[in-house]
Amino acid sequence: MSNTEIIVKMVLDRWNASISAMDNLLQKLSDEEIQMEIAPGKNRGIYLLGHLIAVHDAMLILLDMGEEMFPELKDIFLTNPDHAVAKIPDTKELRSYWKKQCDELNVKFKQLQPEHWFAKHTAVSSEEFINEPHRNKLNIILTRTTHLQYHLGQLKLLGNRNKS
Amino acid sequence: MSNTEIIVKMVLDRWNASISAMDNLLQKLSDEEIQMEIAPGKNRGIYLLGHLIAVHDAMLILLDMGEEMFPELKDIFLTNPDHAVAKIPDTKELRSYWKKQCDELNVKFKQLQPEHWFAKHTAVSSEEFINEPHRNKLNIILTRTTHLQYHLGQLKLLGNRNKS
Repeated sequence: MSNTEIIVKMVLDRWNASISAMDNLLQKLSDEEIQMEIAPGKNRGIYLLGHLIAVHDAMLILLDMGEEMFPELKDIFLTNPDHAVAKIPDTKELRSYWKKQCDELNVKFKQLQPEHWFAKHTAVSSEEFINEPHRNKLNIILTRTTHLQYHLGQLKLLGNRNKS
Repeated sequence: MSNTEIIVKMVLDRWNASISAMDNLLQKLSDEEIQMEIAPGKNRGIYLLGHLIAVHDAMLILLDMGEEMFPELKDIFLTNPDHAVAKIPDTKELRSYWKKQCDELNVKFKQLQPEHWFAKHTAVSSEEFINEPHRNKLNIILTRTTHLQYHLGQLKLLGNRNKS
């Protein structure tokens, strides 16, 4: 295996493990728990779930892998903070969106050959990319994996809430 | 730049940005806030700070970069859960340990040439490494970066606690 193949596997492994951790957590949490705040006065679980879907949707554009699947979520869960928009999708809808999106991203990611992960993403110009070759597609996976873990640490606090 | 140089920069950039985010948060939080629980009945901030130092200490061994700096933290913040050990270092001590450790790791990380990040870490055998070349030193940085972000998302909840 070349270093290129090894590192693409390493980064995609971290992404997939993080998605699996989120899947497992979503299975354990009830719809009611997801509606709760992660801590007093902080974001609700449902907001963070919608936020993750909105952020991952934007990855499709950045990676030049097609159109966003749920563009209507951007205003609710990305542009605005929690509680700013009164009417939002319910937990069951968001669970279904999450699953569909993960499946779609998984298919698209598998289609890309290791070397192509080092091509530029769509938010960087060809001129910039000459001097900033780290602004590539693989870096989108890396930064969104750390973003997912950040919110996963918060969502994890929703579990066993009654025991606290 | 080769793909090897690019990816080492990408991963170390994510590590350094995560450490900086933690530094900024620690500056904003008072000692009293760090003593608080991140959510009702959950880990205290001080436990997570000690936990991160203990985990990062173990990186020195895994990366074959020397001895642990604060081995006494392992039992308190890694082997045991929060509140299991009554006598723990205070917040000021842990703040000082954190800074010293970040400086030390930063010096050691800069000394390693890009290609050497793809060498095996110390917890994998030479035989295993033949078939599992992703179990390299760079992967230690990658997995500890996602671990840091997970707890950073939780520690962030300590801020503006009075406003909630």
